[in-house]
Amino acid sequence: MALELNKEFFENLRNSIENKDSELAVSLLKEMHPADIAEFFEEINIDDAKFLFILLEPEIAADVIVEIEDEERGKLLESLPNEIIAEQLIEKMDSDDAADILGYLDDERSEEILGHIKDLEQAGDIVDLLNYDEDSAGGLMAKELVAINENLTVKQALGEMRDQAEDIDEIYYLYVVDDNNILKGTIALKDLLFSSTNKKILSIFDPDVISVKTDVDGEEVAQIMEKYDLVAIPVIDGIGRLVGRITIDDVVDVIREEAEEDYQLMSGITEDVDFSDSVFRQSRSRIPWLLIGMVGGIAGSLILGLFESDIEKYAVLALFLPLIVATGGNAGVQSSAIVVQGLSSGDIDLHSMWKKLWKEFKVGLLNGFVCSIIIFLYNLIFSSNFALTLTVSLSLFAVIIFATVFGTFVPLVLNRFKIDPAIATGPFITTSNDIIGIFIYLIIARSIFGIIL
Amino acid sequence: MALELNKEFFENLRNSIENKDSELAVSLLKEMHPADIAEFFEEINIDDAKFLFILLEPEIAADVIVEIEDEERGKLLESLPNEIIAEQLIEKMDSDDAADILGYLDDERSEEILGHIKDLEQAGDIVDLLNYDEDSAGGLMAKELVAINENLTVKQALGEMRDQAEDIDEIYYLYVVDDNNILKGTIALKDLLFSSTNKKILSIFDPDVISVKTDVDGEEVAQIMEKYDLVAIPVIDGIGRLVGRITIDDVVDVIREEAEEDYQLMSGITEDVDFSDSVFRQSRSRIPWLLIGMVGGIAGSLILGLFESDIEKYAVLALFLPLIVATGGNAGVQSSAIVVQGLSSGDIDLHSMWKKLWKEFKVGLLNGFVCSIIIFLYNLIFSSNFALTLTVSLSLFAVIIFATVFGTFVPLVLNRFKIDPAIATGPFITTSNDIIGIFIYLIIARSIFGIIL
Repeated sequence: MALELNKEFFENLRNSIENKDSELAVSLLKEMHPADIAEFFEEINIDDAKFLFILLEPEIAADVIVEIEDEERGKLLESLPNEIIAEQLIEKMDSDDAADILGYLDDERSEEILGHIKDLEQAGDIVDLLNYDEDSAGGLMAKELVAINENLTVKQALGEMRDQAEDIDEIYYLYVVDDNNILKGTIALKDLLFSSTNKKILSIFDPDVISVKTDVDGEEVAQIMEKYDLVAIPVIDGIGRLVGRITIDDVVDVIREEAEEDYQLMSGITEDVDFSDSVFRQSRSRIPWLLIGMVGGIAGSLILGLFESDIEKYAVLALFLPLIVATGGNAGVQSSAIVVQGLSSGDIDLHSMWKKLWKEFKVGLLNGFVCSIIIFLYNLIFSSNFALTLTVSLSLFAVIIFATVFGTFVPLVLNRFKIDPAIATGPFITTSNDIIGIFIYLIIARSIFGIIL
Repeated sequence: MALELNKEFFENLRNSIENKDSELAVSLLKEMHPADIAEFFEEINIDDAKFLFILLEPEIAADVIVEIEDEERGKLLESLPNEIIAEQLIEKMDSDDAADILGYLDDERSEEILGHIKDLEQAGDIVDLLNYDEDSAGGLMAKELVAINENLTVKQALGEMRDQAEDIDEIYYLYVVDDNNILKGTIALKDLLFSSTNKKILSIFDPDVISVKTDVDGEEVAQIMEKYDLVAIPVIDGIGRLVGRITIDDVVDVIREEAEEDYQLMSGITEDVDFSDSVFRQSRSRIPWLLIGMVGGIAGSLILGLFESDIEKYAVLALFLPLIVATGGNAGVQSSAIVVQGLSSGDIDLHSMWKKLWKEFKVGLLNGFVCSIIIFLYNLIFSSNFALTLTVSLSLFAVIIFATVFGTFVPLVLNRFKIDPAIATGPFITTSNDIIGIFIYLIIARSIFGIIL
């Protein structure tokens, strides 16, 4: 099986491509899991991938297309006629995967492909799904599920299930509905199996079912499924009718993407890039934050310019500028990260913002105190300039408190205005703290040096 | 159901606690999902939680104990006698949850509780699980699964399943084993159900099964389950015997924790804290990185000290210090983040480190070029000091290239030495880039100002 594929195997596969040895290639591809084929396609050039792709059985080809990354997928689909895509790929897929793939193609092409789908019910399902926002429960759900009327007997339900379950890979739960398709509850396959065949579903199903409406945000769906340890969740429309179900594998992707997004924002990357992307794309994803950081740097230079005469007189002031600026930046990043993490895992309730800021103020007070005592002692020992010693530790104290509270404040406010709080982390918070840190430092310096010297 | 609990409901619940109204409390608790009860317990004080906890039915109490956070859990368990914990809680749990909870208690207590468990097979399972590393497949797996001998008929298998499945909430797959308990494959419940009852399992099971060995790292298990879209994965020992299975809900926790860990390291937080932790704990988790950043700042001040005479002569040099330092820091954080993310999602293969560094060099070259041209033009317009203009743009160019390559290099090297590459992100990379950035800037400044002025 897939996991045991070794170097030799892949060498053989590469050789089969080079020699255009279809027979060998087909026999090797049979040993591979679609996810492994997709991964391999991402490593080789597009012409080689196409050579292998047309050798795949339709079922496998459909799975590979679902697993592969958007860019490569687009290239593979480009070369195939719409009819083949419709009949050999889309028709073999679950409705949610089919909708995802058609959603990436341009509208015209997507409509042409839909026109070639013979199973009109499936085509209708896909069109329905295409209407939902990609990031909502409706956009995540698949239409494939087993729904059983509450008035059936166990025996009838098993027959019904056999009909419905043919196309469904994983069943997990059977959903119980009334005559109007309103979701009433669930029944585990196991319980159906071990109940006497004449019993009514009505008398054995579990009415405690957790469901989501189609317009619920994907991240919220992930939080609910995580909290209640669900492998599948039914999706209902505005009046409670069962319209689809979301399975955990799709939600795992949402969790991973969300975490990656937060991480990238914190590190100042604006696009979803990974290591294999081109130099140009890498550069493009990083330049915006570098430039914003530079604007901050220029603002810092303007503030410093106002104090240029002080620095000329007391050049020693410049020595601790990086320390003040960096520590303020670090303190701000720490607080904003904790807030963003709390918001995305749903741990933070949104009431009492002032209470939270007050708490952070105390954290800042404590950290500021520890850090400024240390730097005070350091300078007391190693510097002969008491004005500098006092300036550095006082401003470090002030900067840490400010940065800690500010780092909490900004993401909370953004979140309240429904803006992704994660954009407040990383370069943004560092840059604003830099500017304010410089200002605090120089103001304190001017006062103290004015008094003491 | 759980999701519909409103403010009024919780007010009633709080009232029932205040008035010690057990009857009302019991009726309200019945409406709640264990996950909601656990969440509520984390919000109230420990005495109130204990009052409610003893009112719960054992099954529910066991689920609540599994869901609740470690700190609160410890406090709840402290007050209960070992016998009650064994018989009313541990015996109702899956083996993996039981092992997790006993693993958190001290050894003596854990042994005493194990001694009270009446089901010796369960006690044995738990002891087995306690031997595995918490973060390995063995530590994640549960012993509860349905294993079916390949020589049984479908009818026998259904009977066998009925016996084994009694304690198992979710079945997902049945595992097929030979007489020596060696894992041979899987069979979907659906397929078992729809096959004729006289068929041998041998003739209908699916031999393509993806499994992991007990010593595989939890993060790798997560990567495998994500890649192959699995809801459960069987765990085998060194010679291929089936010893347990890992379900997706446990892996979702691993993914979430891993992402949070990377995020916290990047933001300079050393402990797993969240917003609800005490001021003291918050402070303790942040102080280490603040201090390391300060050491960097002090190192920066020493380097600046070497150039104090230059700064005295040309105070204007200090103006662009923050810009150089911040931009270098940002560029470094960006590259290290991309590497760390690639490593944790398994996208980066570990060969050809030099090729990766060469690629990053090109990204740095491009970004450095863009940024330094912009700052060159800015200074050309707004500054009358051409030496400064030249110094700032040349050193920005050098610093961005250096930081970009260095930010890639450090996590790759750490990873090669089996150290978590995520510790290279955030404050570490920023701090080292700060120091080196300052040095590059001042060396270039001294040369240029020496030549031109």
